Amino acid sequence: MATAPSVSYSMTIRLEVPASGTAVSQLTTVVESSGGSVTGLDVTASGHEKLRIDVTIAATSTSHADEIVEKLRGIEGITLGKVSDRTFLMHLGGKIEMASKHPIRNRDDLSMVYTPGVARVCMAIAENPEDARRLTIKRNSVAVVTDGSAVLGLGNIGPKAALPVMEGKAALFKRFAGIDAWPICLDTQDTDAIVEIVKAIAPGFAGINLEDISAPRCFEIEARLREALDIPVFHDDQHGTAIVVLAALTNALRVVDKAVGDVRVVMSGAGAAGTAILKLLLAAGVKHAVVADIHGVVHAGREDLVDAAAPDSALRWIADNTNPDGITGTLKDAVRGADVFIGVSAPNVLDGDDVAGMADDAIVFALANPDPEVDPAIARQTAAVVATGRSDFPNQINNVLVFPGVFRGLLDAQSRTVNTEMMLAAAKALADVVTEDELNPNYIVPSVFNDKVAGAVAGAVREAAKAAGASAAAL
Amino acid sequence: MATAPSVSYSMTIRLEVPASGTAVSQLTTVVESSGGSVTGLDVTASGHEKLRIDVTIAATSTSHADEIVEKLRGIEGITLGKVSDRTFLMHLGGKIEMASKHPIRNRDDLSMVYTPGVARVCMAIAENPEDARRLTIKRNSVAVVTDGSAVLGLGNIGPKAALPVMEGKAALFKRFAGIDAWPICLDTQDTDAIVEIVKAIAPGFAGINLEDISAPRCFEIEARLREALDIPVFHDDQHGTAIVVLAALTNALRVVDKAVGDVRVVMSGAGAAGTAILKLLLAAGVKHAVVADIHGVVHAGREDLVDAAAPDSALRWIADNTNPDGITGTLKDAVRGADVFIGVSAPNVLDGDDVAGMADDAIVFALANPDPEVDPAIARQTAAVVATGRSDFPNQINNVLVFPGVFRGLLDAQSRTVNTEMMLAAAKALADVVTEDELNPNYIVPSVFNDKVAGAVAGAVREAAKAAGASAAAL
Repeated sequence: MATAPSVSYSMTIRLEVPASGTAVSQLTTVVESSGGSVTGLDVTASGHEKLRIDVTIAATSTSHADEIVEKLRGIEGITLGKVSDRTFLMHLGGKIEMASKHPIRNRDDLSMVYTPGVARVCMAIAENPEDARRLTIKRNSVAVVTDGSAVLGLGNIGPKAALPVMEGKAALFKRFAGIDAWPICLDTQDTDAIVEIVKAIAPGFAGINLEDISAPRCFEIEARLREALDIPVFHDDQHGTAIVVLAALTNALRVVDKAVGDVRVVMSGAGAAGTAILKLLLAAGVKHAVVADIHGVVHAGREDLVDAAAPDSALRWIADNTNPDGITGTLKDAVRGADVFIGVSAPNVLDGDDVAGMADDAIVFALANPDPEVDPAIARQTAAVVATGRSDFPNQINNVLVFPGVFRGLLDAQSRTVNTEMMLAAAKALADVVTEDELNPNYIVPSVFNDKVAGAVAGAVREAAKAAGASAAAL
Repeated sequence: MATAPSVSYSMTIRLEVPASGTAVSQLTTVVESSGGSVTGLDVTASGHEKLRIDVTIAATSTSHADEIVEKLRGIEGITLGKVSDRTFLMHLGGKIEMASKHPIRNRDDLSMVYTPGVARVCMAIAENPEDARRLTIKRNSVAVVTDGSAVLGLGNIGPKAALPVMEGKAALFKRFAGIDAWPICLDTQDTDAIVEIVKAIAPGFAGINLEDISAPRCFEIEARLREALDIPVFHDDQHGTAIVVLAALTNALRVVDKAVGDVRVVMSGAGAAGTAILKLLLAAGVKHAVVADIHGVVHAGREDLVDAAAPDSALRWIADNTNPDGITGTLKDAVRGADVFIGVSAPNVLDGDDVAGMADDAIVFALANPDPEVDPAIARQTAAVVATGRSDFPNQINNVLVFPGVFRGLLDAQSRTVNTEMMLAAAKALADVVTEDELNPNYIVPSVFNDKVAGAVAGAVREAAKAAGASAAAL
């Protein structure tokens, strides 16, 4: 699979080149013949002998960027200066900050923002704790909580290394839904401890977004927190993914004109995302679902489910609630004749023949990142609709389409919980952003920059929360 | 003690008055004859018959404001509309927010702020965790942690009601030192739980500011966290107060030309602030200190210290480290002939005669809020220097003079701890902001809006941190 140069692997390189000769003209040629692209070229100092040039390049990976720098070094007469990585530059000092909403210019301001005026506001909340949702950040704040155990595709890199992701998430919450999120990166991976900590910090937040916590701990942590807290708890890796997948599947089925209750869906992956997707698909009306994990198709008679003293309860749930036809064997066996493939597992578990062996007008969602379960270009040769998690193919399945709007709706409704009806409503609203005129095999989900998305999702979740009587107003 | 009208008790009242007649001219008269003041008067609609006026008044208390509104209601021809409390209006939706430092305009921005670009930053930190101080908010972030057990003078009002204070504190951190602080209000008052929670959330912060946690739990929580964490832990109610008191005392002694080692200091109050002030004064060279609490002067032979099966360890420490002359009896006994009185206790424990019975050129810091240990106007009749915690008298002892600069210095030095030397340096730097030319009995501490303060304190703390080898750079 060819990958296009990306600004996320972008460097700015300071060079000195002879003022005469061909060095300058060679710069772009060398970068582009190496598979990179020049995205900026600024002459920052010029003299009779030498030019100083800051050239910004995009590469496909870190090693590719290094390779291009080395090729530039080979140009005759050139001197390489500082190499600055744009992504790292953007992270210096962190990506988010705290801002005060009111200026503190003089003693009058101070006496309202802080003592003595603040005391009256405190007493009002002490008398009526629900007023915290009106008079404090609890109206609009979400904790982005991780233990760093399953960060992106990077694995268990710990709480400090997870911080850039959580800051980015907070930035997206603000950008797409005006929500004030703050990262809470925990220096423990103990389930009981995490539950107790999140319960304890809850008074200052209107919602909890769990992020990048590994399975199966994430299931128990979420379930116990939902039980304990009076604010919604949402594990984005599970439910955000499930909602966007359901929205995309809804529109893909519109494209191929099949009904959700008729199609046979085969999933690869029974982790946090896979399980959540499965449950939401079943709630949405999917009747024929089969799940495969690394040991093959999950069925009640499978050795590890029959023999194990304490069988994995998530796998057991899957065995009990899927595979009505008792399919056994490998993923590839199950995919034969299937209408829909949804992968949230590992690279290259299917090939073009597997996709060709699916039913007519097959739908393939190959969501493993960065390398999908099957090359989307190959899948597209026989499948009717193909989606991935990548930004460089059509139909990117991206949680950014979901979590900002979901939380906006929950916060606006002052909801104390988030339930399946709200998630189904979010998926339907997201699918409906794509109009009949726009719908086609390469456009089953809107762009993350489509400014209708967050509002549509928020409105649907808000109404569902109110209808569910889950909102504070109903109590 | 007369209290001046304050904007912290400020209301905006919408009125309709007849266009002709004397109603309009009576407005100001009525407010001012009731002891309030008119701080704004806007005609928001005008007709032949009626005027609509928004009048903003300042009162001395909530009940006083209500009283003024009732008097306005008595004006002939007037109709009262909505009454808006300016302090509450300012708190609607909270006083702080999260802001993104970089715009997210397009997919390129997204790919650097979030996936895939962010993954490289995560991996850099995973390889070198210390890079979190460079590439994340950990460079500049402080957690403002409370359990709501001792909020201002309001007592144990709980975590939600404490939130407006913690938001205000965060706003002050930003205003005076550019620090990104976020409130963490804990739904537990269990010492072990608080220690575990703060340890767990530490990865995302460069410092911990403990706030409004009641004694004696605050001592143990702070001590255990300092032991456990590699970032500084500072209990502002203790150490912030101690630093500003030492700075004020330093300058008060300059005014009366007495040496710190010679004066006899009597303190009222052995709580969190009292104990911290005492320890810092001893470290600064005070040799003759006596502490009284609600049971009188603390000495080794006092009944509750001799008899108790488990004597209060903080009181025991005081008995062992103060009162070298073995003074016994009441606070009033101890104050007789003393050079310095420092109260962090309760209103009106001393009267004018007690102050008159102190040594010549006495110094009185009556810091109980809102009502001091002795009326400052009366104390000023015989004492040479008087200071309070109130903003409506000269010499306000205000922690805002200290905590922003202290943390700025700690963060700039990437300090892993905060020790007595750094606190002494902060106090000296704050005292030195007042020049010899400026120094007088009514100006022993600078204004909180003096823009030299935070920088001076920060610089002194940063140098002390570096000298102490406590900075990350030294490791």
